[in-house]
Amino acid sequence: MNIMKIPSEWSRLQGESGPPEPQSIGWTRIATQTLHEGRFLTLCNDTVVRPDGSQGTYEHVAVNDSVRVVALTDENQVVLVEDHFYLQGPRVLHLPGGGCGGQEPEVAARRELEEETGLVPEAMVPLAVIDPLPGMTAARTHLYVARGLTPGTVSRDDTEAGMTVMRWPLDTAVAAVYNGVITEAGSVAALLLTHCSQSQHQSTT
Amino acid sequence: MNIMKIPSEWSRLQGESGPPEPQSIGWTRIATQTLHEGRFLTLCNDTVVRPDGSQGTYEHVAVNDSVRVVALTDENQVVLVEDHFYLQGPRVLHLPGGGCGGQEPEVAARRELEEETGLVPEAMVPLAVIDPLPGMTAARTHLYVARGLTPGTVSRDDTEAGMTVMRWPLDTAVAAVYNGVITEAGSVAALLLTHCSQSQHQSTT
Repeated sequence: MNIMKIPSEWSRLQGESGPPEPQSIGWTRIATQTLHEGRFLTLCNDTVVRPDGSQGTYEHVAVNDSVRVVALTDENQVVLVEDHFYLQGPRVLHLPGGGCGGQEPEVAARRELEEETGLVPEAMVPLAVIDPLPGMTAARTHLYVARGLTPGTVSRDDTEAGMTVMRWPLDTAVAAVYNGVITEAGSVAALLLTHCSQSQHQSTT
Repeated sequence: MNIMKIPSEWSRLQGESGPPEPQSIGWTRIATQTLHEGRFLTLCNDTVVRPDGSQGTYEHVAVNDSVRVVALTDENQVVLVEDHFYLQGPRVLHLPGGGCGGQEPEVAARRELEEETGLVPEAMVPLAVIDPLPGMTAARTHLYVARGLTPGTVSRDDTEAGMTVMRWPLDTAVAAVYNGVITEAGSVAALLLTHCSQSQHQSTT
């Protein structure tokens, strides 16, 4: 993907709407209030000055960052897991991953991969970081590619009972994204980024 | 992308972990309690039976679905917007879009595109639906491709002051995803899906 460059000056590519309005200075936080502190998430209500200068409030959710891992075998198969999601219903297919729980993202990625699939990677390479719902939470999802998979120890928590592990050709997993079978945002982004990189590499070598 | 098929029976591709554990029947909701009802989001605490049969609670956020639009010009340029995000800091680059606000997703996609960019599309074609944070919210992000763009009326709200509009070649926007400049999950997924589809089409025709 290194043949595509983005311009150092975005303004050179701007459309007809012109430069930013000079009076806009972004958001300012005046105060923050905790509305609820739960086991996994905290609901906050901040007093803010909006980009147009008006004052108001902004509710947002503080929650741990999360990770998703594209674990690839030597045959370019990707490891997928399937389990029950409370809010989405039975049997959701997705990449291994989960909440960082206060760990560094790479440590969490290695832990989640082994807990859910019983696989320990030799290499865990950062792929991208995405903002799943930037209007509601500052939490980010860190995406990795794992290679050199060797057996470790499965250790699932009480929300993951009934989880199964599959190995699909990467192309098949990408087709499942296109067909709407895989919909979790981190899995969608990580699978497409990996697939596009491989396609780009194949077409230039 | 129609050359790739996923199997009708996923079990045929399963790895060595075997079939689902038969005792797992997924999650059951026993009761739901509203902890906070705000202008944009509602925080709920449900009493549940987990997949392993144990009882517990599950906190989640109810919020409107959202939309993101890949608006393409006849020259295969994509329309991007840049504005201040309260939780991410100044000048976030992303696809036009936002909350559905109770509207059908396609109606919301047309409204958001015109409000933010002043463009009215002839065609608004569904691309995919993703789950941005399925562990925390059931809200989905609906992705569209818009074509046949004609001038309409910009109408931005008080959180969008200072928003600017750009038109970039699609390849440049995809490079911005790879380079970590575009990180909003719906924008990442929609740009990569559109790019991979075009690349696939070009390589098979």
